[in-house]
Amino acid sequence: MKSLLTEEELAIHETAKDYCQSKLLPRVIEAYRTENFDPNILREMGELGLLGATIQGYGCAGVSSVAYGLIAREVERVDSGYRSAMSVQSSLVMHPINAFGSEEQKEKYLPKLATGQLIGCFGLTEPNHGSDPSSMETTATKTADGWTLNGSKTWISNAPVADLFVIWAREVIDGQKGKVRGFLAEKGTPGLSAPAIKNKLALRASITGSVFMEDVKLPADALLPKSGGLGSPFSCLNNARYGISWGVMGALEDCIARSRDYALERKQFGKPIASFQLVQKKLADALTATTVGLLGSLQLGRLKDSGKWAPDMVSMMKRNNTSMALQHSRILLDILGGNACADEYHLGRHVANLQVTATYEGTHDIHTLILGKSITGIAAFS
Amino acid sequence: MKSLLTEEELAIHETAKDYCQSKLLPRVIEAYRTENFDPNILREMGELGLLGATIQGYGCAGVSSVAYGLIAREVERVDSGYRSAMSVQSSLVMHPINAFGSEEQKEKYLPKLATGQLIGCFGLTEPNHGSDPSSMETTATKTADGWTLNGSKTWISNAPVADLFVIWAREVIDGQKGKVRGFLAEKGTPGLSAPAIKNKLALRASITGSVFMEDVKLPADALLPKSGGLGSPFSCLNNARYGISWGVMGALEDCIARSRDYALERKQFGKPIASFQLVQKKLADALTATTVGLLGSLQLGRLKDSGKWAPDMVSMMKRNNTSMALQHSRILLDILGGNACADEYHLGRHVANLQVTATYEGTHDIHTLILGKSITGIAAFS
Amino acid sequence: MKSLLTEEELAIHETAKDYCQSKLLPRVIEAYRTENFDPNILREMGELGLLGATIQGYGCAGVSSVAYGLIAREVERVDSGYRSAMSVQSSLVMHPINAFGSEEQKEKYLPKLATGQLIGCFGLTEPNHGSDPSSMETTATKTADGWTLNGSKTWISNAPVADLFVIWAREVIDGQKGKVRGFLAEKGTPGLSAPAIKNKLALRASITGSVFMEDVKLPADALLPKSGGLGSPFSCLNNARYGISWGVMGALEDCIARSRDYALERKQFGKPIASFQLVQKKLADALTATTVGLLGSLQLGRLKDSGKWAPDMVSMMKRNNTSMALQHSRILLDILGGNACADEYHLGRHVANLQVTATYEGTHDIHTLILGKSITGIAAFS
Amino acid sequence: MKSLLTEEELAIHETAKDYCQSKLLPRVIEAYRTENFDPNILREMGELGLLGATIQGYGCAGVSSVAYGLIAREVERVDSGYRSAMSVQSSLVMHPINAFGSEEQKEKYLPKLATGQLIGCFGLTEPNHGSDPSSMETTATKTADGWTLNGSKTWISNAPVADLFVIWAREVIDGQKGKVRGFLAEKGTPGLSAPAIKNKLALRASITGSVFMEDVKLPADALLPKSGGLGSPFSCLNNARYGISWGVMGALEDCIARSRDYALERKQFGKPIASFQLVQKKLADALTATTVGLLGSLQLGRLKDSGKWAPDMVSMMKRNNTSMALQHSRILLDILGGNACADEYHLGRHVANLQVTATYEGTHDIHTLILGKSITGIAAFS
Repeated sequence: MKSLLTEEELAIHETAKDYCQSKLLPRVIEAYRTENFDPNILREMGELGLLGATIQGYGCAGVSSVAYGLIAREVERVDSGYRSAMSVQSSLVMHPINAFGSEEQKEKYLPKLATGQLIGCFGLTEPNHGSDPSSMETTATKTADGWTLNGSKTWISNAPVADLFVIWAREVIDGQKGKVRGFLAEKGTPGLSAPAIKNKLALRASITGSVFMEDVKLPADALLPKSGGLGSPFSCLNNARYGISWGVMGALEDCIARSRDYALERKQFGKPIASFQLVQKKLADALTATTVGLLGSLQLGRLKDSGKWAPDMVSMMKRNNTSMALQHSRILLDILGGNACADEYHLGRHVANLQVTATYEGTHDIHTLILGKSITGIAAFS
Repeated sequence: MKSLLTEEELAIHETAKDYCQSKLLPRVIEAYRTENFDPNILREMGELGLLGATIQGYGCAGVSSVAYGLIAREVERVDSGYRSAMSVQSSLVMHPINAFGSEEQKEKYLPKLATGQLIGCFGLTEPNHGSDPSSMETTATKTADGWTLNGSKTWISNAPVADLFVIWAREVIDGQKGKVRGFLAEKGTPGLSAPAIKNKLALRASITGSVFMEDVKLPADALLPKSGGLGSPFSCLNNARYGISWGVMGALEDCIARSRDYALERKQFGKPIASFQLVQKKLADALTATTVGLLGSLQLGRLKDSGKWAPDMVSMMKRNNTSMALQHSRILLDILGGNACADEYHLGRHVANLQVTATYEGTHDIHTLILGKSITGIAAFS
Repeated sequence: MKSLLTEEELAIHETAKDYCQSKLLPRVIEAYRTENFDPNILREMGELGLLGATIQGYGCAGVSSVAYGLIAREVERVDSGYRSAMSVQSSLVMHPINAFGSEEQKEKYLPKLATGQLIGCFGLTEPNHGSDPSSMETTATKTADGWTLNGSKTWISNAPVADLFVIWAREVIDGQKGKVRGFLAEKGTPGLSAPAIKNKLALRASITGSVFMEDVKLPADALLPKSGGLGSPFSCLNNARYGISWGVMGALEDCIARSRDYALERKQFGKPIASFQLVQKKLADALTATTVGLLGSLQLGRLKDSGKWAPDMVSMMKRNNTSMALQHSRILLDILGGNACADEYHLGRHVANLQVTATYEGTHDIHTLILGKSITGIAAFS
Repeated sequence: MKSLLTEEELAIHETAKDYCQSKLLPRVIEAYRTENFDPNILREMGELGLLGATIQGYGCAGVSSVAYGLIAREVERVDSGYRSAMSVQSSLVMHPINAFGSEEQKEKYLPKLATGQLIGCFGLTEPNHGSDPSSMETTATKTADGWTLNGSKTWISNAPVADLFVIWAREVIDGQKGKVRGFLAEKGTPGLSAPAIKNKLALRASITGSVFMEDVKLPADALLPKSGGLGSPFSCLNNARYGISWGVMGALEDCIARSRDYALERKQFGKPIASFQLVQKKLADALTATTVGLLGSLQLGRLKDSGKWAPDMVSMMKRNNTSMALQHSRILLDILGGNACADEYHLGRHVANLQVTATYEGTHDIHTLILGKSITGIAAFS
């Protein structure tokens, strides 16, 4: 695959890989055990130019989408939770500000988000509306001098440590409900709270919370002026999904490498278990899925940068790659035998994490139906 | 299926179900979070006659193997870790004492094990010999007045809280290595230690440890006199595997019931998600696997009691039922969407646990090859 | 499994097996090649008492439903097409006459159908209504002295050689559409034709046709008097589905036996391929599916005879067993390597046939949704 | 994907597609029914420059490997048998002559093979040595004035209509067995016969035969001088496997297009079945597999032309794409319901064919072990 990458992409890949292996890997086991996210991680990433990396200007690196994918892959090779924190910052916070924000908003926030000085989160999902955001209940009521937000969001990555909240709400003007629009709310605004959700069974190295908004008063310029309709948050999701499609391949690659090494060292019946056909099949299947999955994401990235991508392509690769990563990591886990449940072997953690990646930002079934609609022209969501 | 059970079996089933739902279910989430096993659980089970239940006499209930299976099913409906603790006590400690012990050993230990006054563990697996116990390194050297044990065991359920250790070791007499035999060692014997293995990714509601033996001196009557060769521990494993085949079906039934209830309550696109074909398929597949799996275990239990079972039948049902439970619980987990990683919903815990049940007491692949040998007459373990 | 059968069942099993292996097996390859069904087969089965075997009286054997299942299993061990011909005669023609016919109809037809002197077929499916018979277009208009049938049916097994047609049609009385009811039409009735459908890709050893009815005038006593509503043909389908659930296990057993023998004889790399782990896994998986599938059908048969079965149980076993048979026969086929496409090896024929068994009498997906409705209470057919 | 192709590749693609849809499609159903291969097909392909298309000179088109893949894809969109006939001619006959032949051999044979004036076949597989050609029994004994061949080959595509036989045999010089080498034998050489294998269950639109050689005397210049060792036929197989990886995607694309159209037209329960979630899932899964499979083959073709490919990459894509095509075509087949077994709907034929593509030129399991060896460094073939 290397032959398909540019010099710049290879260099960024190397930077990301070095950082992840030397700085992230050593702390992930403890972080997962204690369910503790260290916000410095985003600052470290920021220093290396890994946040909002595809954005031009505002202190961002302005690299290709493929380079962004390679970063996601390296971060998730360590842990999906760390990649989630990075994805949220880059695709779900910096991207909408860049795409839908005013020049003032961009200048105020993007440089600090790029360095990790500010941490952001993205509030779209609501307790009763996971797969169907069009039923959103959160409202933003137009007032004389701004907006008043009411509602709640759940399963919001980064929320408890976030300095900046991108909140999606349905605007209400003169008592009339309108479009869904994006708002920027800073931590500490009265009525805004973001308690952590604890005791998660996966993604424990990242932090997740609810967001509650009770009469949160925001100034008029809190609105992302170019946002309008669900297409706006969906464009963020598509960016994030694209990154996920790369990231999960990194996690699967780590599972392959670790289970291969284990199989070569572990001897049973007098031979390394890597010599058993049933073990070789697991490895061969996983490597194949990784190879074609990465090629798919690469091509998607090239199409993205040339302006030729379509949302259903993103659905396809997000769905395929998360599904493949989950399926094969689970199969590889069995190679470890009893050690599968020891966290020092890393695979069990990847397996737990990958189930979430196949669910968030569009469940597997929702993407099935997005593709189904694209193929048949018929919506079958309900 | 009820039409195939006796009155006595139905009564035991009811007793077990009541206990598990009222006493075990309320404590499992906290136990799993804190990785803490409460030894009183075995005492409570003992009071109800659920331990070593198929043994005749010695304070045991003397019920059918099907009744034993129903107990396992109800315990594992709550948690595979609780069922593991029970299985070890019944199939791996009380069974070998009953089958291979002297009358004195039976009278001394079985009644106290039956009440849970004593807790037992079973030391067979060694760090380097999981699937191939014939390479066992632990030795029991014959001395003038008894035996001296040296070696180590790993992934031993109940070990850290065990009062009684059933240890399998290769006997060494006059410097000659002989057969593998069973020994009973009491907690506190010098040289015997059993530290807990912590930070497990599954079965966290049960306790697991290593067992280290450094010149552990045991009296002559510590030997299980009728044990001899690997056939002895294998007969224990077959009993345990039989129980596992029932137990995991209980866990899967719990996943079905909970995901069904969730799907009926959770609405998306204006309808309960239970009305979506992709959700119905998941439930239909899981229920089918449960139904045929339970019928298989039931028939196996009847054959066991009539003396007509064979080890490969046990391999078949252990392998099939753990595999089906794992596979379908994972699929059902997706019904929960984002809530899949919230432990209050129970399914994520079952999913993590069931991976271990498909691995311990013979991995999926080892049972594949046991069956393959039975079908073709050719051993293909290496 | 033998321990669960009665003496009578074992005897019938033996009779059926002998007949099928000695009389059917030698002609199946040629029949499949030439797409030619020999109607004498039904006469031979009739002589042995294998047709309508569960019916009491009227020249029928009056055996248990399990015995009927064992017959289906042995016939389909040779070919699904032969079993289909038998199923139609027994479950879809003789059963409705016995269940919904008048005493005169029973006496007139059942004895001759039992001997195979008459061959029957069952006309329910229409060209535009496969999975949804409630939209049936065929009508039976009440006339002064009988009924006039108009409409067409397709994919009707046995039709081109049938002497007696059980036709399901919506009654029209005084211009009002009413219930679906069953009618008996004899070959040669003006307006009734049943041309063969040729060049089938599966079930080529059986014969299939369309049925066209243009103003087919039937006497008043052609009506099956106790039929009324779709429940009537559905009860026939449930009987047939039950038999299919047994039959396909026979086909899969044949695939296991033949691929096992092949694997033991075929040597590559100096060893029988049966010694390869990847081959043993295929065999182990298939044997497991067969074992639990047969136990499921057996229990279903016992419930049927005790009056405790329910349609969703039939859906479950028909769906599970046809799906398992298809899936595993396909995997076993690969054991044959290049010989997979030589018809002398039989497996390719089974594979092609089994796809149809998973489709007819309720496709896999329709039974998924029947089960889904049973589990959730919500119909999701459309 | 079009954005990744050159102008020339697009043009060739168009030419191939037009020819296949207008000339091959109309005759395939009858050919499959009657198991009859029309040798004119190769002449027609030759006229369009589709044979040996990657070869430079000798009347060949000299196009890229990707262009060759696109040809295979279009031919197999109609039928795998036609693509097999073309693959044999191009990859297994023309390639070895070009790669291992003398200048005289190239000039004598390649131009006529390129036009289809001559038809070739490739004799490697022997009755007892499918997956393990190193055990080859056919010998070529050096004589005073040439070679004498003895042995037999089986499952040889094109053999009964072949004018030119590329035969692989172990050389015997002075009674000493040596390397495997390639020989060119013309039809009509005494002792050489190639009877057809009839009654195949798949690939019936192509012709397959055995090759028998009894003291077949060949002149000295019948030897392909640069051939030596199994690496020579393996390089042919790798070329053919590469083409297969493209071809089967074409067959799967045809299955998707046809089942999609069917699903849009076929109505049940008052709606097109394309609106059902269970149908959309089948289509979405198949389209995803096709997309990533094609990207994989495309990248493999680019690596091939740049000299950077490796045999294990070919194994990966051949194995993945044939497996995906087989698996998904089987699932799509179910969309057709009862019409699945009508040959006019084409899918049943593709399904039967694709099983063979997953078996020939290295079975799925053999490629698993080739990949396993590549990943672990350990050969596990036996």
